[in-house]
Amino acid sequence: MTTTDTHHASHGYISDKDRYLNRLKRIEGQARGISRMVDEEVYCIDILTQISALTSALQTVAVGLLDDHLKHCVLDAARAGGDEAEQKIKEASDAIARLVRS
Amino acid sequence: MTTTDTHHASHGYISDKDRYLNRLKRIEGQARGISRMVDEEVYCIDILTQISALTSALQTVAVGLLDDHLKHCVLDAARAGGDEAEQKIKEASDAIARLVRS
Amino acid sequence: MTTTDTHHASHGYISDKDRYLNRLKRIEGQARGISRMVDEEVYCIDILTQISALTSALQTVAVGLLDDHLKHCVLDAARAGGDEAEQKIKEASDAIARLVRS
Amino acid sequence: MTTTDTHHASHGYISDKDRYLNRLKRIEGQARGISRMVDEEVYCIDILTQISALTSALQTVAVGLLDDHLKHCVLDAARAGGDEAEQKIKEASDAIARLVRS
Repeated sequence: MTTTDTHHASHGYISDKDRYLNRLKRIEGQARGISRMVDEEVYCIDILTQISALTSALQTVAVGLLDDHLKHCVLDAARAGGDEAEQKIKEASDAIARLVRS
Repeated sequence: MTTTDTHHASHGYISDKDRYLNRLKRIEGQARGISRMVDEEVYCIDILTQISALTSALQTVAVGLLDDHLKHCVLDAARAGGDEAEQKIKEASDAIARLVRS
Repeated sequence: MTTTDTHHASHGYISDKDRYLNRLKRIEGQARGISRMVDEEVYCIDILTQISALTSALQTVAVGLLDDHLKHCVLDAARAGGDEAEQKIKEASDAIARLVRS
Repeated sequence: MTTTDTHHASHGYISDKDRYLNRLKRIEGQARGISRMVDEEVYCIDILTQISALTSALQTVAVGLLDDHLKHCVLDAARAGGDEAEQKIKEASDAIARLVRS
């Protein structure tokens, strides 16, 4: 579909979409598992270990998405000329600041 | 129920269990939402904002569980005397190190 | 010396004080090195690598101090009875929250 | 000076150099202060507060340097064409991953 193709081109992470979706499905499963551990009152330290693992998995997804964003949106905008690349870098830097602090 | 009561006493975070379960249900929903955003190829920066929010929510749960662990398991062990409190603090410090680095 | 001994007993991390001071001296040197790198306009990515290393070194010190705090102040207060242990755990949990989010 | 100008052009964060140097001087002072607090056996929790503040200050510097790197090195390389921009983004993404995890 033309519309979707354009969409892919502009947001640019389609090449790895299945890999992201698989990772995110695993992340959902990890979140569900943590909920079950609390419900079953598993030993607190074991729950914390799972939360650290889930946080790391999320960070891997975030860093991957940022890399795709820089490689596609930012580079495309830079090559097209104009001010859009600066704007996209500003957005990316703000997102990096939020990730580093979260 | 006696069995459950004993269980509560030993793992000690039952007082806030419903609050934790509600938060974790929200966290599961956030994870599902991020998956959907990737599937629908939402703008990458917006997905990163949601990942930061989910990471912060997880950290709040983790810090709460740690606080409960210290207030219940560690204090109980300290008051009971013996070496168990040192062992529990060792476990807690290792968990803190993993959280700080994740 | 009696005064110092009392002081040690209350803040409790004296056993490793030299190790902490050595690490912190290294950390100061790392901070000075980063300043020099910026002044000499070293390649940005290399500066970022040093900032990550310095952040990790600080986290190691922080987790060590927390562990000492729990093992000494908190356990001593718990064994002494009364409300002071809860108060010290509250302080520790707040410090953990700041570390996890910083 | 021609040499320096070239250097500035290639590493690109010279516009804010004084601001960075001032921040890093403050960071050095914070590191020295933490060392002195440990030496004087200040209350552990107060030292942890200073470590969190220093970590946040370092993250602000890191995010600023990354932003400058993207705005200058990466954009310049993208506009020049060729493969260098991809290489610079790869380096930046690796640096982001280290920062997010540290």
